[in-house]
Amino acid sequence: MATIIKNGKLLLCDENGFKIESNDLLIDGGIIKKIGDAGDKTENADTVNADGMLVMPGLINMHTHAYMNFMKGCADDVKFNEWLFNRIFPIEDKMNGDDAYWGTLLGCIEMLSTGTTAFTDMYIFGGVTAKAVRECGMRAFLGRGLVGEELETDGKRRFDEALEEMAEYSSDLIEFLISPHAIYTCSEKLLVSLNEEAKKRNMLKQIHLSESDFEVSECIKKNGKTPTQYLDDIGFLDNGTILAHCVKLTDNDIDILKRTGAGVVTNPASNAKLGNGFAPVQKLTEKGVNVCLGTDGSASNNTLNMFREMNLCTLLHKAVNGSSTAVPSKETLGFATLNAAKAVQREGRLGVLKEGANADLIFVDLNSPSLFPNNDIIASLSYCANGSEVESVMVNGRFLIKNREFLTIDTQR
Amino acid sequence: MATIIKNGKLLLCDENGFKIESNDLLIDGGIIKKIGDAGDKTENADTVNADGMLVMPGLINMHTHAYMNFMKGCADDVKFNEWLFNRIFPIEDKMNGDDAYWGTLLGCIEMLSTGTTAFTDMYIFGGVTAKAVRECGMRAFLGRGLVGEELETDGKRRFDEALEEMAEYSSDLIEFLISPHAIYTCSEKLLVSLNEEAKKRNMLKQIHLSESDFEVSECIKKNGKTPTQYLDDIGFLDNGTILAHCVKLTDNDIDILKRTGAGVVTNPASNAKLGNGFAPVQKLTEKGVNVCLGTDGSASNNTLNMFREMNLCTLLHKAVNGSSTAVPSKETLGFATLNAAKAVQREGRLGVLKEGANADLIFVDLNSPSLFPNNDIIASLSYCANGSEVESVMVNGRFLIKNREFLTIDTQR
Repeated sequence: MATIIKNGKLLLCDENGFKIESNDLLIDGGIIKKIGDAGDKTENADTVNADGMLVMPGLINMHTHAYMNFMKGCADDVKFNEWLFNRIFPIEDKMNGDDAYWGTLLGCIEMLSTGTTAFTDMYIFGGVTAKAVRECGMRAFLGRGLVGEELETDGKRRFDEALEEMAEYSSDLIEFLISPHAIYTCSEKLLVSLNEEAKKRNMLKQIHLSESDFEVSECIKKNGKTPTQYLDDIGFLDNGTILAHCVKLTDNDIDILKRTGAGVVTNPASNAKLGNGFAPVQKLTEKGVNVCLGTDGSASNNTLNMFREMNLCTLLHKAVNGSSTAVPSKETLGFATLNAAKAVQREGRLGVLKEGANADLIFVDLNSPSLFPNNDIIASLSYCANGSEVESVMVNGRFLIKNREFLTIDTQR
Repeated sequence: MATIIKNGKLLLCDENGFKIESNDLLIDGGIIKKIGDAGDKTENADTVNADGMLVMPGLINMHTHAYMNFMKGCADDVKFNEWLFNRIFPIEDKMNGDDAYWGTLLGCIEMLSTGTTAFTDMYIFGGVTAKAVRECGMRAFLGRGLVGEELETDGKRRFDEALEEMAEYSSDLIEFLISPHAIYTCSEKLLVSLNEEAKKRNMLKQIHLSESDFEVSECIKKNGKTPTQYLDDIGFLDNGTILAHCVKLTDNDIDILKRTGAGVVTNPASNAKLGNGFAPVQKLTEKGVNVCLGTDGSASNNTLNMFREMNLCTLLHKAVNGSSTAVPSKETLGFATLNAAKAVQREGRLGVLKEGANADLIFVDLNSPSLFPNNDIIASLSYCANGSEVESVMVNGRFLIKNREFLTIDTQR
């Protein structure tokens, strides 16, 4: 059945950027069919009143590890090595697929309730992430983290399982990516093989890149070049590549990212929490690199709240650049919507309210104490909102949350 | 009537720091009378079930301008001079007391709903702030911002009005401070006079200090010393002085702050948003300076949400110091509670749950998606909470919010 959303303020965008418009939205078959007066054509449609609401594209969390959600508070205020080797890895060793399933579901609940409708994930337990995502009805780009020396030997079991999982779970809502973990956990041979697989299967790729000084200095020691140069030289970077973190970049690295069209996902909370510093976001955008936004996993954030992340992103870079005009709030909003869609090669279909786009959208209560009065709604999404203003969430034309009630998940479970 | 809070987890603290304890809380006459088994003594008491809740001290926002609340979104992503002279000042010129009253009330609603029970304010319109605060039942430390050359001439009207206001509104809940605006808007003569008035009347003082490079360089040009040295040399700094911002400090300034016992209020969001950078919070705490936390006004934040501010504070300083152990979350929680109480000379009475303290407390829903599972509740208050987890708020033994309903303010007004 079609849905007509009436009386809301819509967050649209045109060649001049974001704009707010009061209008109706007609949705059918998971697609936005019309933006404009719906008139009286409400017979065969479910009419939803969005009075007092901003209706905007759902946010897209471009880098997380949702299964880690139950780890929040397991490793705070500790050194990176303590964090990874003595806290996170021992927990992961003891985890099983069931734990990962519940962690992911909890992550989806947190993301949906704070206005995220789609996410890109890297996980270690096959099948369970896709299962949790399918149950709750979110949109996701999923990649099983791959590590090792050779695809043909030690990587084969995981890769074959990933292919089976793809066959079982691929859908309108779930797409799979090829996801080598990082240059320091994958051999060059493995990276080259996975790159070929991605080309052959026409799949997106994701990888962690240049997260810490240690990663960069080790790469230079071993390969005589930066991690970005290294990936470029083996032909790994293209406009279907999603690069998480990218904190430690040279100007030359930034030029490479621009030239290859790879998408960068900045994770300000995680990079701050682990003491890795600040990604050069202002430089990246000035050079025209496609910058997206992600929360990273709950062990290094510790929330999957994209409104919080937008706020951090727009504030941090002003402080670090000593400029109140750096990384403006409208740009940050673009990171979490339009740029994310570009990185997953769905421009015009995701991250935007327009005719023909997927109906992935959220209602934000404009009368919330954090947003009222609405002097500049667009800026307020980054500066004022904390995620609790989200009233309803629709993915692919289906309400997953309506008036703050989850419709697809029993949150008490 | 007494209140007994049962079944909650209490956030207490002892000489080893914060700790969580399951216990009852008996409140009478606005004071915490007993922490321990309340038994069956419930006849003459209102019993409140806090099952699933963390009962913790209300947060204390140590620097804001609540009347600015309606200005959120009026001046985002612009240069400081544009911000102050072309955006903020023209609005303030057109404002009247009625606007300031509504702005303050809106600010109180936002603060209470996100778990702040007390705040320190600097305002420009006399009377209306105290009126709004009294109506909603919050606790506040209020100071009318004073500027000019001489107390006897141009400052006299404002100061006399402030004294009248004090006489009318001073109470258990409302205390007034002497509040010169800043060293660049007040003459030395005025600062000296106000310092004497504060001593004579045994009042706390607050002032903005070392917020920007411009302020520091102008002070050095004019006085041959930093703003902190300047205030120290005129005898303004003591343990009853509250200093907002303190972004640009030399090591010598930090030694002065330690020696004099003045309290520092860091405002990470505001300092970031206006491009002023990062206060040296790690150095300040290492030296033993009393650091508190504030949101500043809504035009430079743009929220009055202290959970958001704790999060920013603990993340930012890790990034800027390149250390995942800098400014730990427990320290940040102390900034917003214990240290604030010390700065207003109410140690043991505010910012803490203990017998004899004022019953200013909040219920935080531990089953919120942002906090569940509760691996480390104390760290999660800084890393995970966004303020929307606050269920109930009590000030001076009286519930102002219960189960998310405001009891003293009609929020629809």
